[in-house]
Amino acid sequence: MKHIFDTVAIVGPGLIGGSIGLGIRRRKLAAHLVGIGRRASSLRKARQAGAVDSTTTDLEAGTRSAELVVLATPVNTFGELAMRLARCMKEGALVTEVGSTKESVIEAISQALEVRNDLAFIPTHPMAGSEKRGAENATPDLFEDSRCIFTPVSGTPPGATERLKRLWEALGAEVHFMTPRQHDRLVARISHLPHIAASALINTIEEQEGVYAGGGLIDTTRVASGEPNLWKAICQSNPHGILEALDSFSDSLAIARKFLAEGDFEGFTAWLEEAKKKRDDILEMRKKPHSSPQKT
Amino acid sequence: MKHIFDTVAIVGPGLIGGSIGLGIRRRKLAAHLVGIGRRASSLRKARQAGAVDSTTTDLEAGTRSAELVVLATPVNTFGELAMRLARCMKEGALVTEVGSTKESVIEAISQALEVRNDLAFIPTHPMAGSEKRGAENATPDLFEDSRCIFTPVSGTPPGATERLKRLWEALGAEVHFMTPRQHDRLVARISHLPHIAASALINTIEEQEGVYAGGGLIDTTRVASGEPNLWKAICQSNPHGILEALDSFSDSLAIARKFLAEGDFEGFTAWLEEAKKKRDDILEMRKKPHSSPQKT
Repeated sequence: MKHIFDTVAIVGPGLIGGSIGLGIRRRKLAAHLVGIGRRASSLRKARQAGAVDSTTTDLEAGTRSAELVVLATPVNTFGELAMRLARCMKEGALVTEVGSTKESVIEAISQALEVRNDLAFIPTHPMAGSEKRGAENATPDLFEDSRCIFTPVSGTPPGATERLKRLWEALGAEVHFMTPRQHDRLVARISHLPHIAASALINTIEEQEGVYAGGGLIDTTRVASGEPNLWKAICQSNPHGILEALDSFSDSLAIARKFLAEGDFEGFTAWLEEAKKKRDDILEMRKKPHSSPQKT
Repeated sequence: MKHIFDTVAIVGPGLIGGSIGLGIRRRKLAAHLVGIGRRASSLRKARQAGAVDSTTTDLEAGTRSAELVVLATPVNTFGELAMRLARCMKEGALVTEVGSTKESVIEAISQALEVRNDLAFIPTHPMAGSEKRGAENATPDLFEDSRCIFTPVSGTPPGATERLKRLWEALGAEVHFMTPRQHDRLVARISHLPHIAASALINTIEEQEGVYAGGGLIDTTRVASGEPNLWKAICQSNPHGILEALDSFSDSLAIARKFLAEGDFEGFTAWLEEAKKKRDDILEMRKKPHSSPQKT
């Protein structure tokens, strides 16, 4: 395949950034790939994993000649990084980020890039990942049969969006478009809410009761063992979406509670059946990646 | 090991009943083991699995000479079974059940056995299991390093309780004692609540959004794919415990909601950290089965 981009810079070549790098190199989608990070040890891992061609801890030096800069660091670092990118990126280049929330991220980055209207900024969220972290766990096929959500902002040249879409499709993803708000409401329900629910389940029991816990509780709360500071940053960047999701969840719990309190076990069973059917359907749907309802 | 019981009858030799049977036979804890069920096909599976010595679909014939009858059918069948047992069980025999709730089960069985105060009745709940069902998935070591909760009722001869405790210990379980109410509150929080929360999470999302779901949502909601009628029966037998657990859970969610609504991300992170630490501690605790806080 002909290169889609000349030089690509990945800021934060960890699990996601490193997998993008490995995928790009494996498929020869870029002429050169630079990995940029703050710690030499992480950059060494990215090189050892084969995720990048070269590395630097100098953001300005690493991005100056890049046609595409991919921000793959935690979402709360994007604003400051974008301010620095505004001072060094080359004319007409493309900035993208792979953060898991969009509205607040777009606000921070767009504001920083206001001084540079030659740059195109395209927010994306690859819906793939792993509990594991770091370039040592990156794989070139992480995005095969996955979806990558684009939440375009106004003023982006269609050619730039099209080009980045080709890159993601070459990495194996199906590109879906939605607004930043639609995205944030979606991830609040499918990702942030389950995390908070899992933490709340654990905080409902006494530690010594855990000795009796079966596989059900353990699986249901697996995500609650995630890194609190990472989840703090995620939730901090999507409070409105999460509050809305929490309220919908409370409504759903209230329905179940009413059935139980009133002894309406027919209603309760129908409610359980609705959930079982929906979940089983979702599992089926996930098996057939490119048959999703919202094809682009 | 010398037999602990002469003839043992297992009513419902499925996953749990069959594993008790396999464990008893493997360890020679009974002289003879009868499997009793309604369907010849299930009984054939129990025989093929080696879970019982003989089988019958005739409850009266199968239990008449038993020193111990183990009820391992769904909890909503216990009342009727106990009424029939009251008419046929031999003098001074022992009845036990392995249902996952206790208060309503004890009420139904005790009432049925009122006419037979020579029989000892000991409610138990082995805290082990699997998503799988049926004798074909039974294993003789299912209870190794597990806990079995006893919730004794008044009037039970200590010798009977001691004898059943020896059986469970021989099967590898640690026997813990608590009141039926303590038990039901406990299982509501560690088992029934996670199931309802998982179903509510699924019912909060639209089916077509599921295509974007990651491993977090899928794991968190695994139990929601359980059999609705089985869960209906479980919840029906523990409405008070579950309502109490649901209210504690709502309180916990309300704490998280308040932190988010007020932008108190320090508080929110501390709340996430509390959950992570507790869950990680529980995982450690589960690794060391016989070091639990409530040893007998």
